Amino acid sequence: MSDRTGRRERPPLTNPASERVRSVRGLSRRSARRRTGRVLVEGPQGVREAVGFTPERVVDLYATAEAAERYAEFVEPARERGIFVHEVTDEVLDAMCDADTPQGTVAVVDWSPSSLEGVLAGDPRLLVLLTHVRDPGNLGTVIRGADAAGADAVLVSDASVDVTSPKVVRSTAGSLFHLPVVTGLAIEPTLATLGEGGVRRLAADGGGAGTIDDTDLAGPHVWVMGNEAWGLEEATLAACDEAVRVPIHGHAESLNLAMATTICLYASARQQRA
Amino acid sequence: MSDRTGRRERPPLTNPASERVRSVRGLSRRSARRRTGRVLVEGPQGVREAVGFTPERVVDLYATAEAAERYAEFVEPARERGIFVHEVTDEVLDAMCDADTPQGTVAVVDWSPSSLEGVLAGDPRLLVLLTHVRDPGNLGTVIRGADAAGADAVLVSDASVDVTSPKVVRSTAGSLFHLPVVTGLAIEPTLATLGEGGVRRLAADGGGAGTIDDTDLAGPHVWVMGNEAWGLEEATLAACDEAVRVPIHGHAESLNLAMATTICLYASARQQRA
Repeated sequence: MSDRTGRRERPPLTNPASERVRSVRGLSRRSARRRTGRVLVEGPQGVREAVGFTPERVVDLYATAEAAERYAEFVEPARERGIFVHEVTDEVLDAMCDADTPQGTVAVVDWSPSSLEGVLAGDPRLLVLLTHVRDPGNLGTVIRGADAAGADAVLVSDASVDVTSPKVVRSTAGSLFHLPVVTGLAIEPTLATLGEGGVRRLAADGGGAGTIDDTDLAGPHVWVMGNEAWGLEEATLAACDEAVRVPIHGHAESLNLAMATTICLYASARQQRA
Repeated sequence: MSDRTGRRERPPLTNPASERVRSVRGLSRRSARRRTGRVLVEGPQGVREAVGFTPERVVDLYATAEAAERYAEFVEPARERGIFVHEVTDEVLDAMCDADTPQGTVAVVDWSPSSLEGVLAGDPRLLVLLTHVRDPGNLGTVIRGADAAGADAVLVSDASVDVTSPKVVRSTAGSLFHLPVVTGLAIEPTLATLGEGGVRRLAADGGGAGTIDDTDLAGPHVWVMGNEAWGLEEATLAACDEAVRVPIHGHAESLNLAMATTICLYASARQQRA
């Protein structure tokens, strides 16, 4: 049997207990991701962006027959690029996934994190450094917000949640493949390197004298963000050039981390692109 | 036995199957909230803000002995205001709650939604109307963001998720008690009333010609927000004065609803408070 492009179709994968299925499912564990250097991307939005932006890193694409048809817009280009597209049953797909609703398709993608040196070589104007983000959903949402605001890269410290965890990958809504993400950074050496690279270090902190509205954000800078609950460490604050706050006009105590980060980045984008 | 202020201490509530406990727990159901006009507020942040901002509406406050001591900053003022503070066991507190981690205290609060007429009588400058918000966490986060941005009120259509559900209340982080929230609004009559009241109706829509940065936001206006997945209905768009978009500078398809709403409101606050 051959498909429209003349290639031989393989039979669908039907055994949820097979070695292959278990190895895909294993990518939900950090140890397996470290050993293989691969991540699991679940759902059509993430798979589409991985195929569209970093096809050379997509190792395998799995889809049910129904999903392969519904998402032909990226399944066909993936096939044409030579990516292995495997048809799977619903049961196999569920067995591969961490998500409750994988929506018919997942991909296994080589994870090649960017380096700080590589990012600095590109003369970045807008960066964000997450020092102690602990919630996977927040980290993913920050990456999505940084992408939308046109940031040049997202820097993540070694004291933060693992960027490659399925929950983070899902909540980036595909943005993980749109901009460089540097992980495992030691906070203070990173701030020193950024300073030497001419990047102004702005601590996003409620105690800042200036606000995002009255601070000059035209030059290259990095927003340095703290933990969801307790903010920035004293040593980190001290290592920054300036503390800047998002003004709170009403009675709310604060904004959540993803919200505050995105508002800071959009304030920067507005000034830099004016 | 009497406490430091000389009042008689009642014994702690210890029976998780009691009528009182079941009636508090019942407030997780919409039907019970409608019948009683009361809502369940879980956790110290929400309880503190309810006591601080709308003490006249707090019917009962429940706290474990440990929480009553830890949160004396609002438990004592609540007692002094004459609010019934009931000591409960951990088991009773868990039985009352919808949340997995109620953190030792909950309150039952009279829910008196504001009216659109009342909001308009205050000459509002900055409003948000949610037309089809479906996710409780998003609705709560929008209310928190609107509070932070200093919006005058949040308007919620009858096609949206119920504002009084425990998940919404929790995710407002206390902001539900900081600003008027009007619920159950029919979308088009509301837009007509707002227009007659001199409030410019701005549809937040990716297809808008203008952006939040190049649109004049100094006068009174309302941000009209659509559904998380499919945005605004055509008829709603047509009933607005103008469509305005949040610029997407990178490759992200969109921002999530709470993020987009908060960015719009902060853009307004910046211009109105300049």
